Amino acid sequence: MLYFVTAFLHTVCEDRSLKAMLSKNQVKNITSLHSKKERDAEKLFIVEGEKMAKELLASDFEIEMLFAVEGWISENIDTLQSRGVEFQGIDEGDLKKISLLSTPNKVFVLVKQKQAEPDHSLFSGSLSLYLDAIRDPGNLGTIIRLAHWFGVSQIICSPDTVEIYNPKAVQSTMGSIFHVKLAEAELTDIIGDENKFPVFGALLEGDNIYKKENFTQGILVIGNESNGISSKNLKFISDKVKIPPFSESHAESLNAAMATSVFLSEYLRRKKYF
Amino acid sequence: MLYFVTAFLHTVCEDRSLKAMLSKNQVKNITSLHSKKERDAEKLFIVEGEKMAKELLASDFEIEMLFAVEGWISENIDTLQSRGVEFQGIDEGDLKKISLLSTPNKVFVLVKQKQAEPDHSLFSGSLSLYLDAIRDPGNLGTIIRLAHWFGVSQIICSPDTVEIYNPKAVQSTMGSIFHVKLAEAELTDIIGDENKFPVFGALLEGDNIYKKENFTQGILVIGNESNGISSKNLKFISDKVKIPPFSESHAESLNAAMATSVFLSEYLRRKKYF
Repeated sequence: MLYFVTAFLHTVCEDRSLKAMLSKNQVKNITSLHSKKERDAEKLFIVEGEKMAKELLASDFEIEMLFAVEGWISENIDTLQSRGVEFQGIDEGDLKKISLLSTPNKVFVLVKQKQAEPDHSLFSGSLSLYLDAIRDPGNLGTIIRLAHWFGVSQIICSPDTVEIYNPKAVQSTMGSIFHVKLAEAELTDIIGDENKFPVFGALLEGDNIYKKENFTQGILVIGNESNGISSKNLKFISDKVKIPPFSESHAESLNAAMATSVFLSEYLRRKKYF
Repeated sequence: MLYFVTAFLHTVCEDRSLKAMLSKNQVKNITSLHSKKERDAEKLFIVEGEKMAKELLASDFEIEMLFAVEGWISENIDTLQSRGVEFQGIDEGDLKKISLLSTPNKVFVLVKQKQAEPDHSLFSGSLSLYLDAIRDPGNLGTIIRLAHWFGVSQIICSPDTVEIYNPKAVQSTMGSIFHVKLAEAELTDIIGDENKFPVFGALLEGDNIYKKENFTQGILVIGNESNGISSKNLKFISDKVKIPPFSESHAESLNAAMATSVFLSEYLRRKKYF
């Protein structure tokens, strides 16, 4: 358990200038969460910076402990109190010690991970994304951000996709991680024998996405950055699709995040503006 | 002038095992091109790696000098000879000394910059991109790559956009830099008083891009990552457009590269698949 948190729980006190220093041991315990192993063990993740903290406080994610410089706490004291957030004022020096950012930004939060199951009811009537071994945290974050923008109902990650709560992935969602349902599962475990919804996958020999009239519900599988959709998942693809290049002689393919943005844009257009 | 190149020009010789070492002075002269100032002065840029070199050799860009490990030279000797490329074999140690990549990849080329003027004839009948102070080399590279995919006829950069020949930008185009017309100019200098083509710009109050029927020719202005379209260029926007989010309550905006991918996808769809 988080034995280090109870050691410095603070309730709001009249003297706002009270500023506890972090002990060496506290810094050690907090920074241990920079590693995936400890995040998994403690079921926590790290959220940093003013903008991310604002989105977090407006979400239903549970906050384990919030550390911030005094100015930020003064500005946000009402929200912290009404939400019942445990917090501690720290100075810039301590913030730098625990932060993962090259330029730490006022606030650092330990947040409880959510353990969500795939929601099968969303496979019909809306679009879910399945991420098949996406490895780059920046790509994952960007895809979560795009999913939020274009109204994807949930994102399901393969077990070999980069950790959802990787700090770089979290930060690059720009807050969208608090708005999109996320789960982890093997594709084989969410697709039944009597599958009634289409499973789309980007493949070279696929149908032109701009002409794909049934691209309004189901699952869109996004393949790995280098290898595309894994062989074990290829058999579940019922509808192969592609983004046609302007010139058929085009050699390169679009990368995972760019392709996702085009597919999701086309989904939204078909869904809302057709 | 490139005084350091003439010092080690090699013609193809029978003894392929000939491998000249780079002198300290040569390494110094080559690595000086890591800086923009020297690239500007010498009108050269750096291209690295097997894939990029392949695309380069298939393009009409002029090669000043090519350095590569022997294995690569053996494999590509016919192309080098038929194209009349000056080259020199080097070992991995020397490659590492001159490379900008964390993992140098066999071949390192000095290429002559092209000084292109905006082509006004392309503003009607096709889409040109105008980049208004794009600052991140990775974003620039991605946008060039997208432009190539979706058939943009030319990219014109504002003088305060990151250098087209920035090595990181060049590498992240994945070769598309050799296929898209690039120029630099102020927007005011390319838009005349009797403008007959639309100038599109992404703005919050813009028209829904999915419904924008005239989005088939003209100029699309892409604004700076943080500040959007600059105030001096706003007055040239004849057609404000936006990518509508799924939920109108959405707080964040898409980043420059993601927005570009959606706009260009919509351009291609309208142009070819409507």
